[in-house]
Amino acid sequence: MNHSGATAGRLLRSARRLFAARGYDQASVRAITRAARANLGAVTYHFGSKWNLYATVVDHMFATLADRLAGAAAAPGPAADRIARLVEAMFAFFADYPEAPRIMMHALARGGPPPEAALPHLRRNLTTITGVIRDGQATGELRAVDPFLATFTLLSQSIWFVVARRVIATASGRSLDGTAAAAAVARHITDGAVRAFRADPQGDPR
Amino acid sequence: MNHSGATAGRLLRSARRLFAARGYDQASVRAITRAARANLGAVTYHFGSKWNLYATVVDHMFATLADRLAGAAAAPGPAADRIARLVEAMFAFFADYPEAPRIMMHALARGGPPPEAALPHLRRNLTTITGVIRDGQATGELRAVDPFLATFTLLSQSIWFVVARRVIATASGRSLDGTAAAAAVARHITDGAVRAFRADPQGDPR
Repeated sequence: MNHSGATAGRLLRSARRLFAARGYDQASVRAITRAARANLGAVTYHFGSKWNLYATVVDHMFATLADRLAGAAAAPGPAADRIARLVEAMFAFFADYPEAPRIMMHALARGGPPPEAALPHLRRNLTTITGVIRDGQATGELRAVDPFLATFTLLSQSIWFVVARRVIATASGRSLDGTAAAAAVARHITDGAVRAFRADPQGDPR
Repeated sequence: MNHSGATAGRLLRSARRLFAARGYDQASVRAITRAARANLGAVTYHFGSKWNLYATVVDHMFATLADRLAGAAAAPGPAADRIARLVEAMFAFFADYPEAPRIMMHALARGGPPPEAALPHLRRNLTTITGVIRDGQATGELRAVDPFLATFTLLSQSIWFVVARRVIATASGRSLDGTAAAAAVARHITDGAVRAFRADPQGDPR
């Protein structure tokens, strides 16, 4: 197997596009190789199998997201700023990987366990985000919310926005296209999370 | 077309199951009629077409959700209690309609506009939930958060939990099966939203 080289790169790009458009089962090796201007045996030669090609696409995608979230979390600062950077990193990732939401939707619609290739990166995301929450709890900035559930709050809203923005726009009549709309939603998610998780002030009766 | 009667009922149930398992394109009329113990022409006779059968499934599903959310919002009370009832109604709906998440995932993976049959119900949900937020703002319980974005916060977390709970459980090693786990997540969503949207206390310096 040889993942490098021009042909392998073209196969990865056409696979990403076709897995997003059609899902794993309906994206044929024939369609993928044709779109990559490669011969029919190129998937086997470079990746071993269609499933391994899919796993490589998923691995690249979630490794990139995990790297970016880890990068966003690495800089020190107040918990609110670090949460803002995490949310911004998620939105930036989805802006750069427009195929990611539909690849995820196809995998969820297909059912079964998540692709093995995604799991280490998903675990890393969990570690990264819960780490930011725990740091904020250690400094007293954040209250004793369950870090796992706090992570869920940040991820779920960010992912659902990219996944459902067109449906939400159609149902609401509100335009959600473009970077300004995404930035407003990202700010809303951050602001809500910071308010939801910040420590109660001393003597606040509520 | 005749949507009532035992055969139509069986067709609706088998269609719901097969659209969830395979998606619209891969759920054949042959498979749907066979599972319903009906003849091959029964879909045309009772629903006019496979698409109309799908639209009827989607209509029933989202009408039920919209009715339940409207019912949950109808009772008066403090904003926090009404938000809790909205979230509980969403979780109860998904517990009663286990096919709903995958039908939604297939539709999102397929791309294109949402099914027409869903739109009036999605609009009603928006009206219901933004209404609860606006009522809480009118009484001074909630701050001037954008009611549309507040609605997004409640819906996105509730939907993403049912959609992704297995993937999240696999990645985190945390069991999310069962009603107790769902109830804990519902409480977290409610508690976070109430903290995120409540009015700032007078004189709070933050």
